[in-house]
Amino acid sequence: MSGEAAFIAALRAIATSDAARGLADDAAVLEIGGSRLVLTMDTIVEGIHFLPKDPAETVAWKLVATNVSDLAAKGARPRGCLLSYALSNDAAWNARFLTGLEKACGSFAIPLLGGDTVGHVSGSPRSFALVALGEPMEGVNVPSRSGAHPGDTIWVSGTIGDAGLGLALLQERLQADEASQAALISAYREPRPSVALGLALVPLVSAMMDISDGLLIDTQRLADASGRSAIIELDKVPLSPALLQTVGDDLESRISAASAGDDYCLLFTAPQAHEALLMAAAKEQDAVLYKVGAIGSGEGLTLLHNGAPVPLPDHLGFQH
Amino acid sequence: MSGEAAFIAALRAIATSDAARGLADDAAVLEIGGSRLVLTMDTIVEGIHFLPKDPAETVAWKLVATNVSDLAAKGARPRGCLLSYALSNDAAWNARFLTGLEKACGSFAIPLLGGDTVGHVSGSPRSFALVALGEPMEGVNVPSRSGAHPGDTIWVSGTIGDAGLGLALLQERLQADEASQAALISAYREPRPSVALGLALVPLVSAMMDISDGLLIDTQRLADASGRSAIIELDKVPLSPALLQTVGDDLESRISAASAGDDYCLLFTAPQAHEALLMAAAKEQDAVLYKVGAIGSGEGLTLLHNGAPVPLPDHLGFQH
Repeated sequence: MSGEAAFIAALRAIATSDAARGLADDAAVLEIGGSRLVLTMDTIVEGIHFLPKDPAETVAWKLVATNVSDLAAKGARPRGCLLSYALSNDAAWNARFLTGLEKACGSFAIPLLGGDTVGHVSGSPRSFALVALGEPMEGVNVPSRSGAHPGDTIWVSGTIGDAGLGLALLQERLQADEASQAALISAYREPRPSVALGLALVPLVSAMMDISDGLLIDTQRLADASGRSAIIELDKVPLSPALLQTVGDDLESRISAASAGDDYCLLFTAPQAHEALLMAAAKEQDAVLYKVGAIGSGEGLTLLHNGAPVPLPDHLGFQH
Repeated sequence: MSGEAAFIAALRAIATSDAARGLADDAAVLEIGGSRLVLTMDTIVEGIHFLPKDPAETVAWKLVATNVSDLAAKGARPRGCLLSYALSNDAAWNARFLTGLEKACGSFAIPLLGGDTVGHVSGSPRSFALVALGEPMEGVNVPSRSGAHPGDTIWVSGTIGDAGLGLALLQERLQADEASQAALISAYREPRPSVALGLALVPLVSAMMDISDGLLIDTQRLADASGRSAIIELDKVPLSPALLQTVGDDLESRISAASAGDDYCLLFTAPQAHEALLMAAAKEQDAVLYKVGAIGSGEGLTLLHNGAPVPLPDHLGFQH
């Protein structure tokens, strides 16, 4: 067991409240009076979750967006956030961070409620934490990772792998034409989770989470949490024009895309009978849903490409 | 204006929601359905808020306790917390942190609900953030810093200056006998806010906060937020036997105590007519309250010692 896995196992032994959901979900669900509250916290560290050269505006945007993405995946309407900010002496960087923060809070309609500013120790990586609070849709269960049933279809709500290529471009591991480059880097730096889509889908899903670490690893987590198996059909995974333009469409590029992180779209399962309702709900939000696989009994993740089995790659996604 | 003051002023311009209380209070108060929720977030950074040699157990304890102290000062019952943890390779340190976390969460009855574990960049200072959520007492306003009225008495709920001397001992700026040393270091490392006392007092106070940065600076903040003046009678400030044994009882030691941070007891104002009720409420909690001053009209902070005015020290408390 890795150091992090052992640590999280030990944390789990402390987090025994029902509201903690065994620390196995993306969010906690707390009952307060007659109301429920969805809570999520994400921390980003320079050099791990963002690049030192990323613009401060987009660092702030991404911090808010990744938390909002967790709320969207729980079908919760954003109600507020708290920020822990490491304040460096770089006043221009701090000011640009605030510009991005204001833009993101406005765009996702999530009021900044408070937080804490601490001195940043010069020379150490910047680190920021955000807690987001959301109010789930009344009368609807807050979906977890663990509700998938055999026969359910696996869906995603957006193209896969763009942000991973954006990171590769920024790390100069890849080249792309100008338009593709802009689209892929924007996918990495400025994810755009859709709260309205999460709210529209939540009554119809059996399990839902966002894709933060990669389609394959996150599907495996969902299947494991549900005690079920999952099949992903790589040829059904939606790829953007920018991705196809940059790395082409072959098995390797599809596996890469499906194991890259930072997609921040929805990954969910639903009974086959809900397909027409799901498509209608998405259409109302001007969104497109893609069927990428199915849940089975048993356990484990299976990959198919054009109907033929494909061995699992060593690396299913980003593990941090 | 300092960098931090400018930054917080800019944050304030973003945090326009009523629930944020203008970022001028110690906590946000959010309405969810028919319920209210008190939210607070504290971040601690090695070398700023705790010492590298502090035991990991007490670092965790203090992180939880400082957040619970904010809930106590708002008369809110702890309902849960979320932790952002920077996981280093020092497995023994991490394990001891969890021991302290479990002990603190158990002791303050605050369930761990979730959070986020990120890799700690080797060589950089450790940094941890905690968000605590509390449910305020039904039918009672959540007290802010700004409700003090002329004529109100200023009270504190514990001895002042112990933690500051504990820090001085740990930094080898001071010496003390063994028993005093243990008591003062424990005050620094393991503050013990009283939630039950906060709940008992909250219907009776006009303004309440916890003392985190020093009695003088926090009183000045309370008075400023209320648009009133405050008088602190230094000779009335309660000092512990360990403090008196270590630095004696003179004006200098009293000013030092009143401008040292990390007390984590309650600072509140209440109408004079509430004195008997306050004393009775405290007695039921086996707590002792101390009258240390009064609120006046006008503005500014005045110090008295045995009735005679004393000039304000340059340094009213810890500013971070």
